[in-house]
Amino acid sequence: MKQYLYTLEMETRDYECDIQGIVNNANYQHYLEATRHKWLQDNGYSFRKWHEEGIDVVVSEINIKYKTPLHGQEAFLSCLNLRRDGARFVFEQDIYRKADMALCVSAVVSTVSIVDGRISRGDELASLFGL
Amino acid sequence: MKQYLYTLEMETRDYECDIQGIVNNANYQHYLEATRHKWLQDNGYSFRKWHEEGIDVVVSEINIKYKTPLHGQEAFLSCLNLRRDGARFVFEQDIYRKADMALCVSAVVSTVSIVDGRISRGDELASLFGL
Amino acid sequence: MKQYLYTLEMETRDYECDIQGIVNNANYQHYLEATRHKWLQDNGYSFRKWHEEGIDVVVSEINIKYKTPLHGQEAFLSCLNLRRDGARFVFEQDIYRKADMALCVSAVVSTVSIVDGRISRGDELASLFGL
Amino acid sequence: MKQYLYTLEMETRDYECDIQGIVNNANYQHYLEATRHKWLQDNGYSFRKWHEEGIDVVVSEINIKYKTPLHGQEAFLSCLNLRRDGARFVFEQDIYRKADMALCVSAVVSTVSIVDGRISRGDELASLFGL
Repeated sequence: MKQYLYTLEMETRDYECDIQGIVNNANYQHYLEATRHKWLQDNGYSFRKWHEEGIDVVVSEINIKYKTPLHGQEAFLSCLNLRRDGARFVFEQDIYRKADMALCVSAVVSTVSIVDGRISRGDELASLFGL
Repeated sequence: MKQYLYTLEMETRDYECDIQGIVNNANYQHYLEATRHKWLQDNGYSFRKWHEEGIDVVVSEINIKYKTPLHGQEAFLSCLNLRRDGARFVFEQDIYRKADMALCVSAVVSTVSIVDGRISRGDELASLFGL
Repeated sequence: MKQYLYTLEMETRDYECDIQGIVNNANYQHYLEATRHKWLQDNGYSFRKWHEEGIDVVVSEINIKYKTPLHGQEAFLSCLNLRRDGARFVFEQDIYRKADMALCVSAVVSTVSIVDGRISRGDELASLFGL
Repeated sequence: MKQYLYTLEMETRDYECDIQGIVNNANYQHYLEATRHKWLQDNGYSFRKWHEEGIDVVVSEINIKYKTPLHGQEAFLSCLNLRRDGARFVFEQDIYRKADMALCVSAVVSTVSIVDGRISRGDELASLFGL
């Protein structure tokens, strides 16, 4: 398996499934966001606090490949890597079904930071993240 | 603290908060449902399997009292009791903020079971639940 | 049919349905909230602006009776009445399937207003609403 | 403005906004899905009926560029084009804020059809869509 900076175990909920009996596509985006925020929280950071201090980290682009669908009440691992690409912080995020480690979703999430209303060159975040 | 049949530790996610900075009211209903389904799963049951076998358990009425709001990324305990009231199975569900055990939400959720398209007198579920 | 202060035509979306093929219970709470906010907007008010001005209107209690389930991509009418009950503003909200006017959901939503962090006696809202 | 096969006017709802006061990223995926399903419905098709007949159209990949954020209770236009790319049906979908026609989101959504449990070469859908 690939190496990751951070891995979070989560579980789908039945209400996240749609009529096809599988997790609705948009909910994976929720899982991906929850994983990023939880990783920040575990490192002592908070999007919420940053927002109150005038720094908003926003997603500028997202690419999600859907490989294997998850069903309701299934455990999965949500894994994350991070790299800087100029002003962008790029999260590479993969989701695996826990039972057999099948790859469910593979995503690339590009974020930029807005400081006092302007797109930042990213140096504030880079120093926070040690990149 | 009250005695409960089942207690599940959960955590709010930032996307569940709205513009007021607190968890949107409708999301507590998601937590309550997730708790009931998880309790069933832990007891070897599944709403999904029942649905496939022709038994649908549906909520007929819900009452939620909102006491203390939860914020993003906060841990909480979701607690459940169950009693039968004729054809109804009534879940009494309370949600407590983990940090200080403040009561956040107190709910009464009445469910009925539909067997092969008709409202059942509840005897199938009662025997499953041992009530 | 009952008389209502405000009626909004809406439509369910497939992603709001769950594995039972019907709209998930929590989503009706979203419809009810959207109706209240749209009614305010049509009257020149805004929960968002009030929030920025220090007035938060919060739901203290909700009761929902589920009568007839809606399916995906179905039109419905969301109807609203309002009365004051001391410090509480109580919305009586009913949802009807448009095709045959079957009553789907009947709800009572009690709200209180928080002004500068304290529960208000409601006089600010009463004068705004002309109650 | 670009030419589109289909345009749907929609409106954001306050509960779709998060703590940053703007529509949460995942909700755009809901809007995009709702637009595709509504377009199908307006043409007499239905993902739900297809599902019951053994044809599931599933998203295999999605790319979303976020340009301008929408706020609560804002009207927007959701526009759609469709092309076939082998077994894939590719939806090009753009969302514009109605007030000033600012481009909010630009997405490419690739779908494949699963017929009786296997990925189809797409000929069933192509003939339905006249592609």
